[in-house]
Amino acid sequence: MIQSIEILCVGKELLIGKTLNTNTHWLAKRATTLGLEVSRITVVGDDVNEISVALLEATQRNPRFIITVGGLGPTFDDKTLEGVAEALGCELEVHDEALRMVEEKYRRYVEEGRIESMELTPYRVKMAKLPKGAKPLFNPIGTAPGVLIEHGRTTLIALPGVPSEMKAIFEESVVPLFRQAAGDVNYFEASLNVEEIVESDIAPLIEQVMHDNPYVYIKSHPKGVEKVSRIELHLSTTAEDSNTAKNRISKALIQISELIENRGGKVRPLKSKP
Amino acid sequence: MIQSIEILCVGKELLIGKTLNTNTHWLAKRATTLGLEVSRITVVGDDVNEISVALLEATQRNPRFIITVGGLGPTFDDKTLEGVAEALGCELEVHDEALRMVEEKYRRYVEEGRIESMELTPYRVKMAKLPKGAKPLFNPIGTAPGVLIEHGRTTLIALPGVPSEMKAIFEESVVPLFRQAAGDVNYFEASLNVEEIVESDIAPLIEQVMHDNPYVYIKSHPKGVEKVSRIELHLSTTAEDSNTAKNRISKALIQISELIENRGGKVRPLKSKP
Repeated sequence: MIQSIEILCVGKELLIGKTLNTNTHWLAKRATTLGLEVSRITVVGDDVNEISVALLEATQRNPRFIITVGGLGPTFDDKTLEGVAEALGCELEVHDEALRMVEEKYRRYVEEGRIESMELTPYRVKMAKLPKGAKPLFNPIGTAPGVLIEHGRTTLIALPGVPSEMKAIFEESVVPLFRQAAGDVNYFEASLNVEEIVESDIAPLIEQVMHDNPYVYIKSHPKGVEKVSRIELHLSTTAEDSNTAKNRISKALIQISELIENRGGKVRPLKSKP
Repeated sequence: MIQSIEILCVGKELLIGKTLNTNTHWLAKRATTLGLEVSRITVVGDDVNEISVALLEATQRNPRFIITVGGLGPTFDDKTLEGVAEALGCELEVHDEALRMVEEKYRRYVEEGRIESMELTPYRVKMAKLPKGAKPLFNPIGTAPGVLIEHGRTTLIALPGVPSEMKAIFEESVVPLFRQAAGDVNYFEASLNVEEIVESDIAPLIEQVMHDNPYVYIKSHPKGVEKVSRIELHLSTTAEDSNTAKNRISKALIQISELIENRGGKVRPLKSKP
């Protein structure tokens, strides 16, 4: 069975178009490649109520994982954990292990001469205040730990918004959980470049091939510039083992290529990869 | 009063991490610059039920605008208008003006020698099937028209997912509506680069300046690489006129710069723009 995951990004910088959301792109690709299925992505601002409402909605859709991104730092508008606590109806409390992680970071910053005092100010302690029952995930790059909470069948994971920190915690602490949840499920994809045929004429061919290959998803992406039709056809599947996945894609690739060429279009393989 | 807008992106390519969501980034920036406030961004797959549920949730939050992106083309998985019809409880029907727009496009493609037949196949007619009561928005670049529907106080606008088409319809048909809704409201922003101070030590300074400048939002974005603290401070405001907006930002910029320098940090102006 394919396990689902929702991503909730927190950050005004995404809503004002200051920051391009590369985090979601990266996470969605990693999760898909690991055999999971991202079912929804949501972006909200730095507001406790907005975060908790969006999280509550997500938990009600009952995904296997929810990943939040952003809002774990020391400033007033880092409000993700407050939102999580409100959504799950629990308190925030200083977590001993998390506090040791934060303390160790500031000890190192002092040693490196980056700061003068390793005093645990309220702003620093804030990063160790986790929802009750949560556990911290070590941050190999930055200061604020990630956070993991089990909630019914859903595992909720909060990651920082700084891309290098998000990726490091994901690779170290989240990938093992995803692999376990995905089991042997394998994702496989391939792309074709198609020219000299318009999308409305490819549409019935895609329909036919998807009917004959029910586990393969084919999507057309028009890439044409003025007066030249160029369409990328993207084929993907998720199967119980990698051979099945590859065979499905190969079979569909051959069929769609033949149909397009018979219809007068030109086909060029673009790439295929697991 | 600041008018709100929600963005709903439809497309499996975003959920599998195949496509980086530059559309949302561009739209959010344009909407913000025009004086509106993006309150939420949602991404769902090419599924009528997922689209209609997400739209229904959005309409219940009662934003001034909802923009959907993607899913207007001729293929089986272009399902946005079906989702809109389901959410609003109306039927899809062929819209005469939309059909003329689509027909005219295929007439031109035949003239340009790109296709042989301008026959209005069901796949081509599909792009002219709009929810009852909707009106088409001319697409200067591609084939499928955009779509506008009034629903209570919310104006719902459906744009195609191909970036050049989305932008062209937006500039031509949506910008005038946004300007009218925004009135004289002006957005202004500025950024500072801050070095030699860590985020947890800037946190109380931001809090103080935001307390003294209640209409200015200040957000810290850590950009540091290993062992070097570099933080971008982003200040933004939305005001009834542009002078007020600029003055607010200038005042807050001066105060935060002084506070950071007194605390031992280094400040360098990065950029400021309307």
